[in-house]
Amino acid sequence: MTDPVQDTAHLGHVEVYTDRFDESLDFFTRVYGLKISGRDGDSAYLRAWDDYEFHTLKLTRHHTTGVGHIGYRVVSPEALDRRVKAIEASGYKTHGWVDGDAGHGRAFRFEDPFGHVFELYWDTVKYDPPADDRPALKNMASRYHAQGVSPRRLDHLNLLASDVTEFRDFMVTCLGSRVTEQIRLDNGRLGGCWFTVNNKTYDLACTEEHGRGDGRLHHITYATDQREDILRAADIFLENGVHIETGPHKHAIQGTFFLYVWEPAGNRVELANAGARLILDPDWETVTWTEAERKRGQAWGLKTIETFHTHGTPPAD
Amino acid sequence: MTDPVQDTAHLGHVEVYTDRFDESLDFFTRVYGLKISGRDGDSAYLRAWDDYEFHTLKLTRHHTTGVGHIGYRVVSPEALDRRVKAIEASGYKTHGWVDGDAGHGRAFRFEDPFGHVFELYWDTVKYDPPADDRPALKNMASRYHAQGVSPRRLDHLNLLASDVTEFRDFMVTCLGSRVTEQIRLDNGRLGGCWFTVNNKTYDLACTEEHGRGDGRLHHITYATDQREDILRAADIFLENGVHIETGPHKHAIQGTFFLYVWEPAGNRVELANAGARLILDPDWETVTWTEAERKRGQAWGLKTIETFHTHGTPPAD
Amino acid sequence: MTDPVQDTAHLGHVEVYTDRFDESLDFFTRVYGLKISGRDGDSAYLRAWDDYEFHTLKLTRHHTTGVGHIGYRVVSPEALDRRVKAIEASGYKTHGWVDGDAGHGRAFRFEDPFGHVFELYWDTVKYDPPADDRPALKNMASRYHAQGVSPRRLDHLNLLASDVTEFRDFMVTCLGSRVTEQIRLDNGRLGGCWFTVNNKTYDLACTEEHGRGDGRLHHITYATDQREDILRAADIFLENGVHIETGPHKHAIQGTFFLYVWEPAGNRVELANAGARLILDPDWETVTWTEAERKRGQAWGLKTIETFHTHGTPPAD
Amino acid sequence: MTDPVQDTAHLGHVEVYTDRFDESLDFFTRVYGLKISGRDGDSAYLRAWDDYEFHTLKLTRHHTTGVGHIGYRVVSPEALDRRVKAIEASGYKTHGWVDGDAGHGRAFRFEDPFGHVFELYWDTVKYDPPADDRPALKNMASRYHAQGVSPRRLDHLNLLASDVTEFRDFMVTCLGSRVTEQIRLDNGRLGGCWFTVNNKTYDLACTEEHGRGDGRLHHITYATDQREDILRAADIFLENGVHIETGPHKHAIQGTFFLYVWEPAGNRVELANAGARLILDPDWETVTWTEAERKRGQAWGLKTIETFHTHGTPPAD
Repeated sequence: MTDPVQDTAHLGHVEVYTDRFDESLDFFTRVYGLKISGRDGDSAYLRAWDDYEFHTLKLTRHHTTGVGHIGYRVVSPEALDRRVKAIEASGYKTHGWVDGDAGHGRAFRFEDPFGHVFELYWDTVKYDPPADDRPALKNMASRYHAQGVSPRRLDHLNLLASDVTEFRDFMVTCLGSRVTEQIRLDNGRLGGCWFTVNNKTYDLACTEEHGRGDGRLHHITYATDQREDILRAADIFLENGVHIETGPHKHAIQGTFFLYVWEPAGNRVELANAGARLILDPDWETVTWTEAERKRGQAWGLKTIETFHTHGTPPAD
Repeated sequence: MTDPVQDTAHLGHVEVYTDRFDESLDFFTRVYGLKISGRDGDSAYLRAWDDYEFHTLKLTRHHTTGVGHIGYRVVSPEALDRRVKAIEASGYKTHGWVDGDAGHGRAFRFEDPFGHVFELYWDTVKYDPPADDRPALKNMASRYHAQGVSPRRLDHLNLLASDVTEFRDFMVTCLGSRVTEQIRLDNGRLGGCWFTVNNKTYDLACTEEHGRGDGRLHHITYATDQREDILRAADIFLENGVHIETGPHKHAIQGTFFLYVWEPAGNRVELANAGARLILDPDWETVTWTEAERKRGQAWGLKTIETFHTHGTPPAD
Repeated sequence: MTDPVQDTAHLGHVEVYTDRFDESLDFFTRVYGLKISGRDGDSAYLRAWDDYEFHTLKLTRHHTTGVGHIGYRVVSPEALDRRVKAIEASGYKTHGWVDGDAGHGRAFRFEDPFGHVFELYWDTVKYDPPADDRPALKNMASRYHAQGVSPRRLDHLNLLASDVTEFRDFMVTCLGSRVTEQIRLDNGRLGGCWFTVNNKTYDLACTEEHGRGDGRLHHITYATDQREDILRAADIFLENGVHIETGPHKHAIQGTFFLYVWEPAGNRVELANAGARLILDPDWETVTWTEAERKRGQAWGLKTIETFHTHGTPPAD
Repeated sequence: MTDPVQDTAHLGHVEVYTDRFDESLDFFTRVYGLKISGRDGDSAYLRAWDDYEFHTLKLTRHHTTGVGHIGYRVVSPEALDRRVKAIEASGYKTHGWVDGDAGHGRAFRFEDPFGHVFELYWDTVKYDPPADDRPALKNMASRYHAQGVSPRRLDHLNLLASDVTEFRDFMVTCLGSRVTEQIRLDNGRLGGCWFTVNNKTYDLACTEEHGRGDGRLHHITYATDQREDILRAADIFLENGVHIETGPHKHAIQGTFFLYVWEPAGNRVELANAGARLILDPDWETVTWTEAERKRGQAWGLKTIETFHTHGTPPAD
């Protein structure tokens, strides 16, 4: 084992496209319980009440759905330099430097082999709550507003790729991610990989694309403090006519308690609770699940429903 | 800001002394719900069901109570070298290299100015469950046995020091810890400091010694997955005649949901749940609480009870 | 044992006075999460989302605070006749028949020896939700709106009386209540009594008046489905500047998980969760607590705070 | 509406047959968390920690599985007389008086048209805990022992009948039950009925027999205090190799949070949490669900799995 240098701090934000902007925005704010930090052009900048940055979700009006780009924050300016050099040396497609969105400084953009656009940045805009959004306890990023579901923070996202092994190499090379768990199919291919750059059990997952299309999104997830928050969320979704796809239940992989819904434009959105589970072990060995093990269903036996394998955004052609 | 190098991975284990060994062991296993990995001489090696190492609590028969030593694991052999050099250069008292306990390889021991003994180690013994302790899900360190409280993993400990500022310098210099929150008293002294070496909000706290004596322990804490586990634990403690000191309630500092009890020998033991709260921000700015703010009590107004300020182990002379 | 005839069905509603009507109404709707069914004159009619009647709380603008009147629904018209005869025969002060409030038909009013006004009624107005308040599941009384705390239903109220034994006789005679638990003080007096007319563990409590004044209210309580709802409520109260008096904690008496706050006019309001606890036993023997037992504090050791013994509404002269 | 006289107090106990007695007993005590009050002949008498009677489950060694008999306690000796007269007048098959089991006095036995045996009794044996089973709080029936799942009390059972309407008439006539909810199939038949004799939302359900055989059991259920207890139970079942059939999820009918498993002999066993939901309304109108509504699945969309429609005990021939 070589001496690890952890350059990447955490998943910072995800840009999600919607072709029903007003309904999606209503869902994410009134029902799901994120807050609006700002708006510009075709985008609204959203954050959970304890996200420390200006935004963790950039919701953008678009002709289709899916993911716009994915931002990770690094641990220092030097780490940003190291990462950019590593990416440029890697041969993966790069877009070069861009001015940051409303929520952060300049960022270096690059692309995985399946068309998902990533960016790395150091300079950020920390959320500074106005008087009416100031929390009762000063160690919180903003007021717990208790609107709708009100998750605490951005947790992870799940992308689709036709070759998960290739995607894994990209994540290890470009972000320095660790692979905490994975699925090895009987045909030898990887069926899924769960990545992390810090002590979270995962901040990004990649599962095999079973439809057609490139650069598709499987889901984006925010974290709640308790499993009860997710049970309560199920009632909130039910009363608001939101399509509940599957859950609440517990994943076998990663042990996460989950609930999946589709926001009005069709993007899959998850709520998740990991309990107190973290990957503290610096030489954690990847847990590999076989196809047979996966067929047992989720932790408590729930079978994975069909749409979970096929539905992604944008829709397959 | 300098480029951070994170050498220390996580709090690994704590050695706790007891002058009522059998009763303490019964408490920690049957009531609190840790498991025994092994025994030797005067010690039992305990771990929570999802602790990945051989032990996180070394319970040792002793003429008194309190903390024996505190072990942190580093991220690599090179990190261990770097840390040892930094410690040796620092002028803090060192004990040098020791063979590891049953649960890990060689360790470098050193001491804070108040007599608490620390050690750093890289080589460890990962817990390899025998057939009857094998979990249903392979990503768990061992079987969820549901005995007593059954917390998931070691969380943190709290030491007492007559000069918290001096203790803080020690932690920053020797372990490379970050200070996530602190209390600044009206007299200018630090009343308490909360430290972390990773994304946990804290793995060690130090509060001002109000009694007498050196090297005292305030409490040791394991993490539960849900707040409900802690409410349920309160009933378990009640039925087992365990002294409940204070809680369940929510700390204003760090926002942790807590419950404090005294194990049979008098060492204070906590259960804590942080929800989904993590410190992901690489340049997190220390949150400083004033004395006036602390006087408001805990998050929901509970006043801190007298023994919480005075009781530590071993007892003051 | 005589053959019991259960005439009284359940606590129906409580009229609460406020000298800060607008702030109280804002508290009960936006923060506490009741819904407005209607308004007339100086009153607003409120209900929890699963209360089946038009209202369970009548909030009335008044020159002072405390309780206006307390309504119980009976099981049938015949039961109403029986109760009225029993009350008239009892010698307690009666007010006679009144037209019902907006929420129910004619009611018979009478008074306990300490000035609290009760009424019994059969005809009621069941809440018929308009389209935008219709629940997703037809067995719910209205939509789960998830506003603020959103308790499920009215649970109980607590009155103060200078002679609890005398109050107990009133409840048994007039309402046919059972006494499920009580406190017997060292001086021989009853310190408190918990009453029920159905399978709930209690729907009304009476504790000894330690201040001055007649007909005072100690608190009114709504029930949440889970204890987690109460922990979450504590954060909602905290962020909204509501005075949290004590809790969350578990009562020794009745085992209820509780949280007490003061609404803006000073009336004490509780949230409670009884878990799955019911009194199903038809010849349940009253549980009697001694003064020594009460001094141990609440279930997990929390000491009762001073204001809990002294604060009632309206304030003592 | 006629003046209701509530003669029947509550479901008292269920006798369950097992052809794997030792394994079933191990399941119900060690894993499910009931306690043994006594044993005689081929039976063990079990109760949950807060059941006030000697037993709520009589587990009997038998050549097959299913339900032995179902006991309801009445509210008084006079009520027992009234019920027996009503039953004898009804024309349903009666077995006459039997000496009670270990847990209660004489009982009157009778049978529904599908072969399920019921009994009514007044005299009972209230559980009197020995010193080591005495609870910390005197209002609890026994110590909260925190073994396995540890539900609080017996909740309900579900029987199968080839004609639910006929079964409903039996329950109304013989037990004086109310029908709180029901399913009306497109073919006009009742698909299911939920009954109660008190404020619980139901204490017995009957669903249409889709297999063959008479007098079959669908499931028996104990109540937990919190939904979290059921999520935790799922992990306990998983680690103990118990077959989890479906759940945890929330029923649309009655809104109960549920989890179904099969004990080692194949009898279906449920855990349920109703939150704070009660039927307090004395003239509650039966909620009728259509076949179309039922096809939407459970509350949050879970589809009912096939075995739930076909598996009963004893197995169909």
